Amino acid sequence: MEALKSIALLDSGVGGLTVVKEIFKQLPDERIVYFGDTARMPYGPRPQEEVQKFSMQIIDFLQTQYVKMVIVACNSASAAGLPYYQGNVKYPVIGVIEPGVRAALSYTSTKKIGVIGTAGTINSRAYEECIRGLDPAVEIVSLACPLFVLIVENNLIGAKETKKVAEEYLRPLKEAGIDVLILGCTHYPLMAEVIQEVMGPEVRLISSAEETAREAQEILNEKNLLNPSGNNSCHHRFFVSASPENFVEIGEKLINMKVKAYQVILPAI
Amino acid sequence: MEALKSIALLDSGVGGLTVVKEIFKQLPDERIVYFGDTARMPYGPRPQEEVQKFSMQIIDFLQTQYVKMVIVACNSASAAGLPYYQGNVKYPVIGVIEPGVRAALSYTSTKKIGVIGTAGTINSRAYEECIRGLDPAVEIVSLACPLFVLIVENNLIGAKETKKVAEEYLRPLKEAGIDVLILGCTHYPLMAEVIQEVMGPEVRLISSAEETAREAQEILNEKNLLNPSGNNSCHHRFFVSASPENFVEIGEKLINMKVKAYQVILPAI
Repeated sequence: MEALKSIALLDSGVGGLTVVKEIFKQLPDERIVYFGDTARMPYGPRPQEEVQKFSMQIIDFLQTQYVKMVIVACNSASAAGLPYYQGNVKYPVIGVIEPGVRAALSYTSTKKIGVIGTAGTINSRAYEECIRGLDPAVEIVSLACPLFVLIVENNLIGAKETKKVAEEYLRPLKEAGIDVLILGCTHYPLMAEVIQEVMGPEVRLISSAEETAREAQEILNEKNLLNPSGNNSCHHRFFVSASPENFVEIGEKLINMKVKAYQVILPAI
Repeated sequence: MEALKSIALLDSGVGGLTVVKEIFKQLPDERIVYFGDTARMPYGPRPQEEVQKFSMQIIDFLQTQYVKMVIVACNSASAAGLPYYQGNVKYPVIGVIEPGVRAALSYTSTKKIGVIGTAGTINSRAYEECIRGLDPAVEIVSLACPLFVLIVENNLIGAKETKKVAEEYLRPLKEAGIDVLILGCTHYPLMAEVIQEVMGPEVRLISSAEETAREAQEILNEKNLLNPSGNNSCHHRFFVSASPENFVEIGEKLINMKVKAYQVILPAI
């Protein structure tokens, strides 16, 4: 019966839906419950301790939702305290940083990897530490692109100024000669087209979503927690802390299904 | 695995917790999920169609919460459309009116029964219809006591003016010579002491909570849905549409346990 429970995911907004999309693809029998902290996004510019508290508060809520695993589908929140969440939750808790790093290492031949993320993620040096831990020989060029999250959350991906912003942000990475670029924020895969256009076809973009879904599958399989059947009378559930209409508008396009989002007010911390 | 799901309850505020308390007593292995519509209470003075829509909206939310049964733990909401909810939900849905009536009929010897409730419940004549359907010979004296819900929700049960209000409301019932008084609102059991004092010891007060919990047990048992064990890693969950602090303050005293209430914003209908 544990296996029939849902996979919980959290993010500051719609970004984590890129991971949801991969879960639907790789694990179609699983049910998910998602929380987007749209009232307090973006997480990127906030102090790590604050992001850690926000995330733990959301995980506490998600633990009321019949779950068997928590995916911190937000790089800023993963960087801010994955071991802390893992120590406070009895289910498996996974983040999005290590899966993305493993994929990047498997693809690079020049051993020059680029990482883009929010200011919080980049300043935490979480990607550097993770990459160095796995391969100390890799050269890393990392860069904060704080506007990207706001562009995605405000439905501005196709806007003219977005291309300009991307060119401006990514110029140093282009010049550095990387062959792999980690999209170190779950919002960025939504802008992959623009980023790819700016970086050129020779740079491979890595979204951690695919690898994270694969890691979730491995852990659930190992613990005998894979849902034997999707037909368990439970539906996917979406919660946000503000602006459900906006979340639904972006979310439905992204995961290509009807979304109903309930707004939950989280008390101030 | 259906049996491990929760029993859902809804009310306009804290009143339905009197039913929760009885469920904890009679069905200690069950898990509950509760919704108090504190943003839109009181339901009593609202038109029936509105109360029906509010209730269905909440039942829709509760259906996302892994439930196996819905208890409309609010007389106004039960009176406003129990058959409607039953027609729109695939789980058993029970109300609080018929259980209270059955208990009242079993206790009366004078065949004179009093009913107090909100204006909505009394005007709906739901109690009259239910009583007449089971025993046409019974004389019924019914009376709306709209202030009682507000007294309970505002934590004023012990206040001096409460006794005065109760005396004023209940005088016609005292004079009618009833021997049983149905507390036709799930908030009223919280005021049972004052009401009993005013009515005198010869009048038996009927709270539908006890009977409703018994009916829930019968239905779950019949459908093989009784939870075989409380130890299923799921907790009781409480949701409100406004003022979680106030709900927690009253609720913790009432059900004598730690309560954490999440605020869910329901969109305007």
